[in-house]
Amino acid sequence: MTLTIALDAMGGDHAPGIVIDGAARALRDRPDLRFLLFGDREQLEPLLRRHPTLHGAAEIIHAPSVVADDAKPSVALRQGRNSSMRLAIEAVKEGRAHAAVSAGNTGALMAMSKIVLRTLPGIDRPAIATVMPTRRQPMVMLDLGANVDCTPEHLFQFAVMGEVYARAVRGIARPSVALLNVGTEEIKGDSVVKRAAALIRESGLDIDYRGFVEGTAVPEGGVDVVVTDGFTGNVALKVAEGTVRLLASSLRDALRSSWRAKFGYLLARPALEALRRRFDPRLYNGAMFLGLAGVVVKSHGSTDAIGFANAIRSAAQLVAQGTNERIIAEMRELRAGGARVAAVSS
Amino acid sequence: MTLTIALDAMGGDHAPGIVIDGAARALRDRPDLRFLLFGDREQLEPLLRRHPTLHGAAEIIHAPSVVADDAKPSVALRQGRNSSMRLAIEAVKEGRAHAAVSAGNTGALMAMSKIVLRTLPGIDRPAIATVMPTRRQPMVMLDLGANVDCTPEHLFQFAVMGEVYARAVRGIARPSVALLNVGTEEIKGDSVVKRAAALIRESGLDIDYRGFVEGTAVPEGGVDVVVTDGFTGNVALKVAEGTVRLLASSLRDALRSSWRAKFGYLLARPALEALRRRFDPRLYNGAMFLGLAGVVVKSHGSTDAIGFANAIRSAAQLVAQGTNERIIAEMRELRAGGARVAAVSS
Repeated sequence: MTLTIALDAMGGDHAPGIVIDGAARALRDRPDLRFLLFGDREQLEPLLRRHPTLHGAAEIIHAPSVVADDAKPSVALRQGRNSSMRLAIEAVKEGRAHAAVSAGNTGALMAMSKIVLRTLPGIDRPAIATVMPTRRQPMVMLDLGANVDCTPEHLFQFAVMGEVYARAVRGIARPSVALLNVGTEEIKGDSVVKRAAALIRESGLDIDYRGFVEGTAVPEGGVDVVVTDGFTGNVALKVAEGTVRLLASSLRDALRSSWRAKFGYLLARPALEALRRRFDPRLYNGAMFLGLAGVVVKSHGSTDAIGFANAIRSAAQLVAQGTNERIIAEMRELRAGGARVAAVSS
Repeated sequence: MTLTIALDAMGGDHAPGIVIDGAARALRDRPDLRFLLFGDREQLEPLLRRHPTLHGAAEIIHAPSVVADDAKPSVALRQGRNSSMRLAIEAVKEGRAHAAVSAGNTGALMAMSKIVLRTLPGIDRPAIATVMPTRRQPMVMLDLGANVDCTPEHLFQFAVMGEVYARAVRGIARPSVALLNVGTEEIKGDSVVKRAAALIRESGLDIDYRGFVEGTAVPEGGVDVVVTDGFTGNVALKVAEGTVRLLASSLRDALRSSWRAKFGYLLARPALEALRRRFDPRLYNGAMFLGLAGVVVKSHGSTDAIGFANAIRSAAQLVAQGTNERIIAEMRELRAGGARVAAVSS
């Protein structure tokens, strides 16, 4: 079976070049992929011609407009009906593609995805999830900014979706799940996380729930899935990314600050390169919009072809693993086993 | 004039040793300091005898009990009436000390401080504030966890207090202030930050308000004060601290991974040491409980004498700069210039 991925070829800082190069790279690893490239035909054709294999596995579909990076979601919805982003999402809706990938405007991509694809049965709000490197195993974190206001029920649904996502993309049989909080004790936190903890515990679902973790767990790891509201998750992700960037650049400056340091760097370089690769954000590129009736993956806007290829790979994996079908099944089980959940929810 | 600091000599992981050593160290820089040492006299006396200068500038006041690190605030309040922590705070209340410093249980210290000292006029809730290193200038951040649920009015009061704090401890004539959010555009965020932004803008106070900043601003800097609720602030601080620790230990491991890397490290060592010093958390030790009618500074529980001395120094600075008097004056000005503020608040 082939997997068809719809690409917003015009979204992101370095589109369409890195999108085409990224698709070619992903195809080398997964020859079962096919691509629908949405964007400006005149720009895309010469780029595609440089990749003979991809040329045979991709179709360009002309999209006359592009969603601007700074467009408000509401404006993008009104004015972006013929945009590369919108047409890529519609290809998923219409069954012509199994998933869509875009490096464009996150807010617009989420708004369009919600309107076009709708949410899965039992899910009130989609969440943005990604896999992050930690001291221990890589960890799934959600929501990263789709929902700035969350109820306990939303967090509970994120926990269910995040657990399924970890099984799909990380292949963990029974992922451990925790809620992000200001302390690990049960009495800590606001009423929303406390209630969400009760909902998970009392749901009757077979979730390996580990209670609360603190912000230190984001770099330290220790659980497979960390659940939080979109406000806190967005801030936590950006603090972590920014801190890595700050330390990396400070280290670079330090190792250029004298001849002695420069020589030391030359010697330590292979070890430092291995370290850099371990935390390379491109390896973790590709955030999933979980909870939509269709697979949509958001690539970092400033990534390169290596990063974009990883976003494509994770989209393919989510489809191949039947992530959405699993979420639907979990939510159905929840409603069937229902009275108990309804009792704790009300 | 001398400044008297009440020390909870028993609080923290390495008390009372680092408390006494830290006091001796702080006294070397600021001979105007005097200390009240609250704790177990039998343990404290031999330690104090090792520091002749400090011996002449300090008085031991026996406290029969210690607040446990894992005690719930409510339990500490009930059972800790004769604890070193409680007695140190009461010394501030009774005017025998200008400020109190403790490396003990944060929740208990905040609860006791609120009960004993009360909040300043015009302030509904105290906040925890600290100074953090960034790529650019050090930055004040608050609240770091005292208030997990915040209204726009709370965030507004934090902004006023944070601005005064930045003037006091960092000596900035007109500190720039921003609200932490999921994006920089005015339309971003939940209703609480949006309303807080309006309150600051319309307050009539002479605050250099710069709008919203994202999580990346925590490591990047760019403003002097970042204001957020205690839930997000606590997570952001712990993500940043944990990420620094993770990268530092990964770097250490990398530089020990081969003989070549070890030799490189030896050469680059002076440059790397300078880098380590720049981000040394001990330099930034000492979080202020802003908004209390009295100066209380919380030291990191696991710090050493160098870190504890810095917590003492910042307590002394907060007293010497009249931080609380300035906050009272700002809040009074706000109420005097009042109709406008009342109109936007209601």
